[in-house]
This record gives sequence, C-alpha cells and structure tokens, in this order.
Amino acid sequence: MSRNIFDEAEYERRVERTKERLREEDLDAIVVADPANMNYLTGYDGWSFYVHQAVVVTVDHEEPVWVGREMDGGGARATTYLSEPNILSYSDDHVHSPHDLHPMDYIAGVLEDLEVADGRIGLEMDAAYFTAKSYTRLQQNLPDAEFEDATLLVGWVRIKKSEQELEYMREAARISENAMQAGLDAIEAGVPEYEAAAAIYEALITGTEEYGGDYPSIVPLMPSGDHTDTPHLTWTDRPFEDGDPVIIELSGCRHRYHSPLARTTFVGDPPEELEETAEIVVEGIEAALDVVEPGVTCEAVEKAWRETIAQYGLEKEDRIGYSMGLGYPPDWGEHTASIRPGDETVLEENMTFHMIPGIWTEEVGMEISETFRVTNNGAETLADFPRQLFTT
Amino acid sequence: MSRNIFDEAEYERRVERTKERLREEDLDAIVVADPANMNYLTGYDGWSFYVHQAVVVTVDHEEPVWVGREMDGGGARATTYLSEPNILSYSDDHVHSPHDLHPMDYIAGVLEDLEVADGRIGLEMDAAYFTAKSYTRLQQNLPDAEFEDATLLVGWVRIKKSEQELEYMREAARISENAMQAGLDAIEAGVPEYEAAAAIYEALITGTEEYGGDYPSIVPLMPSGDHTDTPHLTWTDRPFEDGDPVIIELSGCRHRYHSPLARTTFVGDPPEELEETAEIVVEGIEAALDVVEPGVTCEAVEKAWRETIAQYGLEKEDRIGYSMGLGYPPDWGEHTASIRPGDETVLEENMTFHMIPGIWTEEVGMEISETFRVTNNGAETLADFPRQLFTT
Repeated sequence: MSRNIFDEAEYERRVERTKERLREEDLDAIVVADPANMNYLTGYDGWSFYVHQAVVVTVDHEEPVWVGREMDGGGARATTYLSEPNILSYSDDHVHSPHDLHPMDYIAGVLEDLEVADGRIGLEMDAAYFTAKSYTRLQQNLPDAEFEDATLLVGWVRIKKSEQELEYMREAARISENAMQAGLDAIEAGVPEYEAAAAIYEALITGTEEYGGDYPSIVPLMPSGDHTDTPHLTWTDRPFEDGDPVIIELSGCRHRYHSPLARTTFVGDPPEELEETAEIVVEGIEAALDVVEPGVTCEAVEKAWRETIAQYGLEKEDRIGYSMGLGYPPDWGEHTASIRPGDETVLEENMTFHMIPGIWTEEVGMEISETFRVTNNGAETLADFPRQLFTT
Repeated sequence: MSRNIFDEAEYERRVERTKERLREEDLDAIVVADPANMNYLTGYDGWSFYVHQAVVVTVDHEEPVWVGREMDGGGARATTYLSEPNILSYSDDHVHSPHDLHPMDYIAGVLEDLEVADGRIGLEMDAAYFTAKSYTRLQQNLPDAEFEDATLLVGWVRIKKSEQELEYMREAARISENAMQAGLDAIEAGVPEYEAAAAIYEALITGTEEYGGDYPSIVPLMPSGDHTDTPHLTWTDRPFEDGDPVIIELSGCRHRYHSPLARTTFVGDPPEELEETAEIVVEGIEAALDVVEPGVTCEAVEKAWRETIAQYGLEKEDRIGYSMGLGYPPDWGEHTASIRPGDETVLEENMTFHMIPGIWTEEVGMEISETFRVTNNGAETLADFPRQLFTT
C-alpha cells in the first residue's frame, strides 16, 4: 500500500543498517519517536506527530512495527511498506486522557509482545515529541527493561543519502529556487511582510511545472529592518521600508526532503558596507565549499570560512552548517554532524549539509547559504541561484 | 520592546493567575517549555522551538524569566514585555552539542539563581518539546529539587479568553473563511491536490484586506478520494478525480490565535448517501451547539451530538472537539477540556472550542466543523460559512 516513494528494498536496507547499529550498541530494540526517523524506516508520512506514536525496531524481528492513534492506522497502511500485522494502534481514550491513560502504556505492551521488555532498549531521549512523560511511563510499565539514550542512532544511519534521496533533494532545490525568486520579486517598499511570505508559500507548495511541493519543516523566515539579528522571528503586518535589509531563509520540500537556501536583499540602495559584507560572505562560503571532499573534517570546513572572514577583521561564533535532508516540523536538521570548531566528523560521499554562514555587524545582518552534497572529490551545490546581495 | 499585541497588564494578569495555581499546587516554580504557554506568559514569538528554551515563573519573583539560545535573545527583546535582566541565554555550544552540554544544564543554573533549586518545581512533563533528556538533565543538575507534573497548569489558566484574545480569534476566523473559499474554488477534476493546497496557503498568509495571517499550527489537511478516512495525510501530486470526496480542515492564524474550520466537498455529482450524511452531520452539530451555555458539561455537549446521529443508526467513538486558541506547531489544541464522554469540565463564558464531528461510513468520510465561544447564554460560532456539503 506504500506510495512507492522509495522501493521496499530501500526501506529494508535502512532497517538492516539500523539493526547493525543496535547490535553494535548491544541494544535489543529502539523506540523511534522522531517523525523523520519514523518516515525513514517505514515511509510513514502524516501530520499526526502531535499525538504520541512510534516505530519499534528490534534486532530479532524482520519488519519494524508502527504504533499510533487508531484514526492514523489508515494513514500508516497508505504510506508505509509494512505488512498489516505490524501496524498497531491505540484507542482514542489515550489522547489527552483525563483518566491517566497514556499512549506509552500501549507501546510498552507492544514491547512486551515483541519480547524485549526485559532487554536493553534504545530511546530517542532528546527528540522533540519524545516527552519526559513518555519516558517515565515506559519506565513504570517496563521495570525490567534497561533504557539507553539512542537519540542520534537513526540520524547517523541517515547521514549518507541514496541516489533516490538525492533526487528528491534536487527536486526540492528547484522549488527553493522558484520560491526565492518569488520572495525577491515580492519585496519592495510599502509591501507588507506577510504579502512576501504569502508569495513564497504559494511558490513552495506550487513547486515546479512538473511536480508540487510539500510543506517545509520550518516556515519561510524573513528577518528584516532592525530585526536581521533576530533570525527566528516570523513575518508581521509591517510594510517593508526603504533602507531595510531583508534576509530570506526558506526551503522547498519534496516527499519530506529539503534543500534550504538563504539570500539577503535590500530595499532601495544598499549602503556600501552591506555590499562589502556580501562580498566577504560570498568569498567565505566559496572558500569553505572549496575544501569539501571525502576525508576532510567538518571543523576543517568551518576553519576555511573563519580564516577567510578573519582577513577582513570579522568573526562569527555560531556553527555555520549542519547535516540535513528528511524532516518534519520543527526542524529539517538531522542533529548529527555540524560544521563548527570541534566537530571531527569526517566527510563521506553523499553526505548533505546546509551551510549557512552569516555576518552581523552593529548595523546589518547578512546571510547567504547553500545546501551541498559531498561528491567523490568536492561539493555539489543543489540550488543554482546567484550568490550575491539583491536589491529591490 | 514588545510588539504591543497585548497590554503589559494582560501579561501581568496571566502571570498572576499562574502564580495562584502554583500556590494552590504548593509549587515554588514552573518551567514552561510549551511555546504556546511561553507566548501566553511573556509574548515570546519565534520559530526557535526546535532548540530547548523555557519561561520560568516562580511564586516569589515578579516577572517571569525567558531562557533561550543566544541568537534568539534579540527575538525575546523584540517580542516580550520582559525587562532586560529577565532575558537570559545560553551559548551556541549547547546546541546539538558533541560535548554533552545541554541547554537544561544552563536552565538548572537559572533555577538555582532564582533560589528554587531545593523547592518543588512544576514541569510540563508531556509537552511536545520538553524531552525525556530535558527532564533527566534537570534531575541530575538539581538533586534537591522535587519535580511535579504540571503539564496542563498553564493550559487551564488559558482556557477562558480575554476580549483581546477573542478579537484575534475572530480575525483568524475571517482568514479561515477566505482560505476555505479559496480551497473550494481551486478543487476540481484534473487539478493536482498541491495546487489546491497552494491556493489555501496563499489565502491563509495573505489574510484579509486589512491584515495578514500567521502560519497555522497545523498545515491545511485535505484527505480525499479513498483517503477521507485517513485524516492526517497531507496533499500529494495526485489530481482530483470525478467522484472524489474531499475534506478540507484548515485554520487562519492571527498573532498565533486560531479559528479552525472544516468542510467537505465533492468532485462531480455527490452520491445521495453523502448528501444524507451531510444533513445528519449538520443536524448533529447544530444540536450540540444548541446545548452549549455556561454550567453545561463538555460531555453533555457530546451527548447531544451522539443522540442526534444515533437516530439515524450512526455512531462515532472519537472525541468531537477540544479547547483551543493560541498555538504553535504541531498543534493548536490546548490539551485540557475535550468534548467527549467522561469529560466533566463545566463550560464557562469565553471558553473556546473547535467542534469537529465527523462520520465515516464504508464508502465516505464527511466532516463539518465550527469554532465557537461560550457566551453568557449560548454559543457564538466565530466563522460565518455555510454548513453544507459543497460540490465542484
């Protein structure tokens, strides 16, 4: 019943690699609550992560088991490759129950049925949606189990992308290009921020002439004017004004795969300082992309950026990028490798990152980003969009 | 520096009511991690909930304290009413740290500085972004604290809306009407689902002629064709076909306040059964709205629905509604009162609910919903949109 977004064989390889990791960590099972990891292992795709749900993988059972709310079982049948006995669901009285009934009580029963209740069980302890209560209820229900933090176990399995995954990321990149152009076209003095956001959203979902777009895991962010140093504020009713810098960060999304892109524009004639800053950011990002190849560490990529901008007396202390791809709100990042000092992850072919360096001076903020794939000898940027400061 | 979405006095009243609840529960403080609750208590509004953050309220300190990532401190200054000493932030090496540094380590330090480290501290144990690890790190850092589950403490403070909150919900309802019309206009045989989704999104963000819309906490849901029984699947590239039922569930959003609305349309000539089902759903929802008034219980409202449809030999076992208003992804619900059997919450004036009953037979699914306010003697539905089955 799967939507055939990936071959069944691809899911089976993913599950097999996950089982290998479980064996390496001496775990009998993992309870996967991150919706991106659930999708990765089974194909499950639905906006149901506001209630508790999980995919359970054990070393001894061939297929994973999907567990969710009863009304979402049909969605699991429609989107996963799983056979009917491996789609299990709890009744609606577990949802925001006034009777102290919790979905994890049911999931604990599933773990018993899978004969791992007295085993070593990995939990995604720091995944959004795996709440503190999810944890304490599993502890109470399964006193003989030994729980281990396995937050990033599936994330590390995901880090190298398959050809089909890369294809969806490239399709997302086409959508990102269209949406960025729509945003740049919409922004001018007097236009309210929300109108530019609406134009971007319309382009993100309309996609391309050949295919549509999914909802992105993060809404388009457009810090502007005085707020280019507050990167996570969202649009308001305020009209753009002459003299506003505007940063646009967005991502097209295709079958939940992203290819984020950020550019900066200026309403009116930009000050010389901003133009110079743009040139430095472009030089820095190109220097960082130039050192990308298999065998190089993440921190070496960051160092190339930092040394380039240091020549101009500039510094930036945040990380400048992260591994990403498949995602659901609130995030398209994988939370594994970061491009920053101290991250010794060694690049391998078909890893994918969003590199988003920025410079904030007292007056202005400036961001230009690229999503790239590590090739066998360099970096392939997925989007094809001019790296420059734009003006309205 | 607040955006003046609410008067400072309104935030102060909210904080005072929260402190009253803390005293009733014999708690010294609460760590609020739900982004909707953080917004409610301080005004904070940013897409930063993919990293750990919190608002801390103690019974002894006048203002709450906002704690988040360093790059989001500016966003807190721009959107909250808090004074500078009450905006605290942790450095970026706490974010997806390879060095076992966690934001809750920093937040534990804040609780020490607030002199509640050996007190009774409420935690939102089952809130989406308060992870298992957030909990264990607080436990490790604060061995003398006593933690209590306070997941719904702020939710119950939020349940009765102020005049200004209701104003934003009514503004959201105007947006919902426009977006529903845009969706109905876009759906016809041959049009891919994503094009209808794009039209809805464009309308949701464009808002009205007077003001724009925020991103909704849940994306527009449009189960169609064979999938009207899978309510949380999202749009695909599939073109609508003659004979498809399509359910549209969406919400306009204004300053993070929602007014959800669901309607069902049919591509082509609807079968008689669907038209009859629509009439039953309308009769049921009207019967349920008719019994709404202060003093009536939530379960009595559900009973009116259930008894109405039972006359036609139909039954539905899920809850048919829930308290809602302010929200962030993944949900606009407040997780407190539900309209369902066993919920004895007594309705009071200015509570607001989304009532979304549906009927699924073997062939078709059908939903018609209303967001309503409890008035001093009845129910005010916020949107003004025909209650009927639509056709293309």
